[in-house]
Amino acid sequence: MLTRSFAAHRDGHALAREFHLDPEIYAHELTTIWRRSWLLAGLSSEVESAGDFFTFAVGEDSIIVVRDQDGQLHALHNTCRHRGMAVCAEPAGNARRWVCPYHQWSYALDGQLLGSGGMERQIDASAYGLRHAEVFEVGGLVFVWPDGDVEVEPFSEAQAELAHALVSQGLKHAKVAHQIEYRVAANWKLIWENNRECWHCHVGHPQYVKANFDSVPDTQQQRELALARAHDHALLLGDAAGVDEHAEPGLYRFPAAGRWWSANRTPLGPGFVTESLTGEPVAPLMGEHSGYDIGTLRVRTVPNFWSHMSADHAVLTRLLPAGPETTLVRVQWLVDRDAVAGSDYELDALLPFWQLTSEQDWDLCQRNHAGVRNPAYLPGPYSVTREYNVAAFVDWYLERIGAG
Amino acid sequence: MLTRSFAAHRDGHALAREFHLDPEIYAHELTTIWRRSWLLAGLSSEVESAGDFFTFAVGEDSIIVVRDQDGQLHALHNTCRHRGMAVCAEPAGNARRWVCPYHQWSYALDGQLLGSGGMERQIDASAYGLRHAEVFEVGGLVFVWPDGDVEVEPFSEAQAELAHALVSQGLKHAKVAHQIEYRVAANWKLIWENNRECWHCHVGHPQYVKANFDSVPDTQQQRELALARAHDHALLLGDAAGVDEHAEPGLYRFPAAGRWWSANRTPLGPGFVTESLTGEPVAPLMGEHSGYDIGTLRVRTVPNFWSHMSADHAVLTRLLPAGPETTLVRVQWLVDRDAVAGSDYELDALLPFWQLTSEQDWDLCQRNHAGVRNPAYLPGPYSVTREYNVAAFVDWYLERIGAG
Amino acid sequence: MLTRSFAAHRDGHALAREFHLDPEIYAHELTTIWRRSWLLAGLSSEVESAGDFFTFAVGEDSIIVVRDQDGQLHALHNTCRHRGMAVCAEPAGNARRWVCPYHQWSYALDGQLLGSGGMERQIDASAYGLRHAEVFEVGGLVFVWPDGDVEVEPFSEAQAELAHALVSQGLKHAKVAHQIEYRVAANWKLIWENNRECWHCHVGHPQYVKANFDSVPDTQQQRELALARAHDHALLLGDAAGVDEHAEPGLYRFPAAGRWWSANRTPLGPGFVTESLTGEPVAPLMGEHSGYDIGTLRVRTVPNFWSHMSADHAVLTRLLPAGPETTLVRVQWLVDRDAVAGSDYELDALLPFWQLTSEQDWDLCQRNHAGVRNPAYLPGPYSVTREYNVAAFVDWYLERIGAG
Repeated sequence: MLTRSFAAHRDGHALAREFHLDPEIYAHELTTIWRRSWLLAGLSSEVESAGDFFTFAVGEDSIIVVRDQDGQLHALHNTCRHRGMAVCAEPAGNARRWVCPYHQWSYALDGQLLGSGGMERQIDASAYGLRHAEVFEVGGLVFVWPDGDVEVEPFSEAQAELAHALVSQGLKHAKVAHQIEYRVAANWKLIWENNRECWHCHVGHPQYVKANFDSVPDTQQQRELALARAHDHALLLGDAAGVDEHAEPGLYRFPAAGRWWSANRTPLGPGFVTESLTGEPVAPLMGEHSGYDIGTLRVRTVPNFWSHMSADHAVLTRLLPAGPETTLVRVQWLVDRDAVAGSDYELDALLPFWQLTSEQDWDLCQRNHAGVRNPAYLPGPYSVTREYNVAAFVDWYLERIGAG
Repeated sequence: MLTRSFAAHRDGHALAREFHLDPEIYAHELTTIWRRSWLLAGLSSEVESAGDFFTFAVGEDSIIVVRDQDGQLHALHNTCRHRGMAVCAEPAGNARRWVCPYHQWSYALDGQLLGSGGMERQIDASAYGLRHAEVFEVGGLVFVWPDGDVEVEPFSEAQAELAHALVSQGLKHAKVAHQIEYRVAANWKLIWENNRECWHCHVGHPQYVKANFDSVPDTQQQRELALARAHDHALLLGDAAGVDEHAEPGLYRFPAAGRWWSANRTPLGPGFVTESLTGEPVAPLMGEHSGYDIGTLRVRTVPNFWSHMSADHAVLTRLLPAGPETTLVRVQWLVDRDAVAGSDYELDALLPFWQLTSEQDWDLCQRNHAGVRNPAYLPGPYSVTREYNVAAFVDWYLERIGAG
Repeated sequence: MLTRSFAAHRDGHALAREFHLDPEIYAHELTTIWRRSWLLAGLSSEVESAGDFFTFAVGEDSIIVVRDQDGQLHALHNTCRHRGMAVCAEPAGNARRWVCPYHQWSYALDGQLLGSGGMERQIDASAYGLRHAEVFEVGGLVFVWPDGDVEVEPFSEAQAELAHALVSQGLKHAKVAHQIEYRVAANWKLIWENNRECWHCHVGHPQYVKANFDSVPDTQQQRELALARAHDHALLLGDAAGVDEHAEPGLYRFPAAGRWWSANRTPLGPGFVTESLTGEPVAPLMGEHSGYDIGTLRVRTVPNFWSHMSADHAVLTRLLPAGPETTLVRVQWLVDRDAVAGSDYELDALLPFWQLTSEQDWDLCQRNHAGVRNPAYLPGPYSVTREYNVAAFVDWYLERIGAG
């Protein structure tokens, strides 16, 4: 199926319908992409102290992210080396060690086997620790690479750029003010396609286009206005280099050859100092920010993460596939840890901008997926001026799935 | 699976169980039969004026049937040529053009691309109209052939016979007094097998057998009575040839070699001038009929339509498959457009005859399907005197699926 | 898939995850194991008199177990030889003959075709009886071998042992005081693995371990106590040989080479004369028992039955698969037929011991299955001292599935 689908693909065009429907292609994606990529798992603030942990599920994988007594972070496959039961049943918490509820095999926080009811006399205990996934922290974000059996793509280059972009945002000292989990009836790639262009924004997101410059129409006047706003922002940013005056506003090229991450700051529209419905602040300043009018930092990593971060709050979107036709999406709103709900911020003001935008997108994605199911569907051409990032996503995808 | 199942088939016997259960055989049926047959889609009266449309779904296909400004009927695949979203989200209505909700590509009523946000400069617009299915109208019925990419079987021979049979019924000037949609847990072929014999009627349909002659027992006395009734009916029909005095009553041979349609008039029992529980009229005369006692016109087309039409009302049954083990069935009751509910007709009198008969059949079909799931099931022999039409249906099916 | 999975299996280790998930392996199991084994179907007391019947479903099979006028038991495939509908729609009752509801083909209690509406003139009626499965009764239990087309494994050796073990229990004169049906989200083999070791009992079944000696820790002191209790029981048993003084208590070796059945009596803990929460009797003596303190008779047959029988009540557990990831389990509590609820026994006292134990196990099995779904799961080693019976079960399974 995959080979046939590959052969039929036309450059610069959408993917054939089987890429969004076929269970075998989906299984292949789990192996080649989802188990072998740096996935946004969660936040450093969730695993701050020794013993703090959270679990993270992708496909059928369940992975424990835990900090040990020496402060080191581990990602452990949550399946006992005896008969496979999950050694950790809680979604998050603080633990001293892992004890399988079935026959009480026990493991240290770092996964080492501590006891197996006497079977150490039968087996080489050092070979029966919990299996490791790879884990990496940067700027308050925790990334996991599930498949520990293959050579892992180094995080170093991404690390430098993401750390630099995130340093002032203070995610390590942020808290989750609210989160919503969505079950979207669309293939995960259609959700990325939707995310990678703003042609649909003018009609699809009437509130979003007031705050941002990345939608169509994209006139000379708009560009000049965006540039002026970028200068406003730069004045408030210690690091003026954070504003790219030459890039098309918002439509940052991503993903690019060999680069599965990106971070760029984009200007906000006149009157908008944050991504709220009114444009006015909705929470106290976060991190090291000294003023509000700094535009929006956008950080993304394929295959499962994007975010928009204003001076006062950050919105993180994490995707996880649950079958070819279903994607689990978690949207989190972060504010400074010390901000108090009801006095420093109100959810009624904090949430609507991105809750509306997100839910408008899920509706479009679901209708797009339903349309792609039609046997008469033929993949159409992407606009070279408006959908180059969609084409780039598809190119990245085809390369990744073909390399598997 | 298909080849193995073919090889095991015994002539004059029921189909092996995998024909009713296997997803691969079902997928093959969608391609070879359901996308490449004339399917009853709806009624001419639903698309009377310019811009009137209804959508029609078969398998994953969604097709728009629409009348354009010149009065011409079109069947359009409801999937945008850009990224596939359905351009029409409503089940029926009146439209001036089609606008995709995603990026606002727009199309004329006949499917021609009108605008694509500037991409006309990138593509040959004439190659990006909505794809066409075939559509044909006869006697107030609208038939659609979904797959526009293959040579379409001509409608001409069927057209002549169906038009002749339907001319007096006045379906173009009828309205849907009521409709019920059923989700039947049985393979669509078992529903046809049930429809193609009346051996089960005597026990299964106690009210139906009072009105009709096509059930078993089929005695000489019954035949003489049926013939006498046929003469009664002929007296009232302008076209006496409409009654076939030599055919076995009701058990009209269908489908036959090369003929996927049939139309014949059968006598009703003594005291029955229409198919109602009492035998008495339940609505005003339809079409060009000048009297009630004219028997029942039965029109059928494989794979998805049968109907019984009395002088005062018509009952249309449309099948659509929704998986190997599920069939969607819509039953519609039609009366003259000018008849007024509550004074000219009462649903309490109009519906019961065919609602009872239909629901008794769906129950039998579901239990038949459940029995066929049994691995110990062996396809049994069809009765040569009572199930020849079931055998004819199976022969038609095997030829169609093998030719695919 | 099967061949690859076989090749990867390591002796003395758990099965690879695909054995518990893969639909093709499951389909192969239905054919090679579930349709070709002696399955516990029900009780002789359910089919006591001529015409008494019950139906029994395994996979898609539906089988009627019925006693005919001559007192002989039959197992009939419940699918009409004409078009496959089930000839019997009731789960249990008393019948004189079978009449298919579709076209009224009729069959004698023993399955012989009586009438087919005249088709006897078209077919050889003697070839169109209901198909037979094999059936065997022993000690009040009814076993069925579904696939009547293959050579059936003789019941004779099992018959002698099971009859001997069950003779005093009086199951033929017992009644079902209560039954619970569970839908367990675990592969049927994981339920057997759970059943075949008591390592998990100490933590998993705190009430069970008070009454029994088969859990870990298994000390010398425990063994001596068990032996002493076995002697207590032997004093009350006419047949002292029923107590095996040399076997490890409870951990009877099963299944063993060529032996798919087992029956052994195990001692109960001090203060326990029956498997109740308090250890005190919960019903009148059953069968030929003359005293309470006789330990527990355990009878098991792979692939679908185990039981614990005390002097006053018996608990029967029957497994049936409903997909690779679902098992239907029925637990029945039997007491003497003449015992009266409310005066001779109270369900509140009768049920808790095995209801708790069962439900604790289903919970463990479901969590085990969920863990085995993890792609990082690697089959671990079985303990040679605590899980030899689990290993024996896996060996039996692999041999059976490989022989298919």
